[in-house]
Amino acid sequence: MPGKVFGVGTGPGDPELLTLKAVKALNGADVLAFFCKRGSRGNGRTIVDGHMRADVIELPLVYPVTVEEEKETDSYKRAIDGFFDQSAAAIAVHLQAGRTVAVLSEGDPLFYGSYMHLHLRLAPHFPAEVIPGVTAMSGCWSMANMPLVQGDDILSVLPGTLPEDILAERLAGTDGAVIMKVGRNLPKIRRALAAVGKLQGAIYVERGTMPNGGFMPLMERDEAPAPYFSLVLVPGWKHRP
Amino acid sequence: MPGKVFGVGTGPGDPELLTLKAVKALNGADVLAFFCKRGSRGNGRTIVDGHMRADVIELPLVYPVTVEEEKETDSYKRAIDGFFDQSAAAIAVHLQAGRTVAVLSEGDPLFYGSYMHLHLRLAPHFPAEVIPGVTAMSGCWSMANMPLVQGDDILSVLPGTLPEDILAERLAGTDGAVIMKVGRNLPKIRRALAAVGKLQGAIYVERGTMPNGGFMPLMERDEAPAPYFSLVLVPGWKHRP
Repeated sequence: MPGKVFGVGTGPGDPELLTLKAVKALNGADVLAFFCKRGSRGNGRTIVDGHMRADVIELPLVYPVTVEEEKETDSYKRAIDGFFDQSAAAIAVHLQAGRTVAVLSEGDPLFYGSYMHLHLRLAPHFPAEVIPGVTAMSGCWSMANMPLVQGDDILSVLPGTLPEDILAERLAGTDGAVIMKVGRNLPKIRRALAAVGKLQGAIYVERGTMPNGGFMPLMERDEAPAPYFSLVLVPGWKHRP
Repeated sequence: MPGKVFGVGTGPGDPELLTLKAVKALNGADVLAFFCKRGSRGNGRTIVDGHMRADVIELPLVYPVTVEEEKETDSYKRAIDGFFDQSAAAIAVHLQAGRTVAVLSEGDPLFYGSYMHLHLRLAPHFPAEVIPGVTAMSGCWSMANMPLVQGDDILSVLPGTLPEDILAERLAGTDGAVIMKVGRNLPKIRRALAAVGKLQGAIYVERGTMPNGGFMPLMERDEAPAPYFSLVLVPGWKHRP
């Protein structure tokens, strides 16, 4: 009997935002797989500290490339596809040996998660279950106490990598918005929001629900590049009382 | 010392998708407030069974109106605003008496949740904390094992109440989409998706993560009105391997 693979959503950062179902899956896992950068064990692994069996087999999946700028090149694509193939193969060995494997996914596994790459490769061959988690964006707007969308509002989740005119167009056509991949795109995001009259009210959030997290009006944020775990929130609910 | 109000996200339906933080807040609550329809205690209340103190004071907040069609009328708006005022006042009495109040919110409190109406009325006057939850949409795409969005994808959350041409336009301009408020809008949603070539691949999900939940390709769903807890998911991630 092959083992089962769980894609486990770890939530946005606060370890208390793990679900009961995630904790149960972690307690039952023979193998714990998690993505990380070289020299760092990653946020996901930190979140689940204290929920693992003492004899668990740890399987770090270390990203081979880290520079964002390279993402559109063929060599980047080959490297990252090969990495996901290798990672899936390493997990498959444990599943074939009958071991249960939990793969950590920060936030929610099927929402922009790296786990999705493994799921596509493993789910056709092994029992697989996805345990949804609290998304980073939910963690951010909750920490900022910001009601985001209500009633018949449209919400758009937009990458800050979009060209400025497209970003402005999409922001004009939505009620609430979440802008991800802020990083070096902060000045562009600010200009696009200003162009459609939505800069005022927008909130910048950094490391939502984490101990070193914080938020402020986007208008007050300086131009320094934002860290990876940052978002811009644009409130909907125009007719709020 | 006034008590504190917690907006507690209960997740999409499966009680195991409560977070550790939600369980802790529920265990510590003197008063449990929850929205429900007349004659039903509501899904939120059912989800938290087994996590409450034996001596908890239950405070059901019974919606005064239920017919969706009336939503745009002045009398509906007056009735619902008065209801939220009354509900906030009933909770404020407990807070003034120093009691901790947990208000249940299905899914995530600040994401289309009724709790938002109470938060606006209570947070300026009392200590208030929002505990984010797993959204209904995360529950649905996880149950359907459907990777939704990846990389630089745009995600749009759209109400099925939008006019058909607007719905089609927004669907054309997004990668992944979640269509809510399906109900009687099912034939219109299907036409809008077909118009932009995205009907194939769309999944209909009913009562995600609940025991009586299920999903199927939208093309195979008949024309009968969908229940309140249903969604249509449109996958992004065009370049998946």
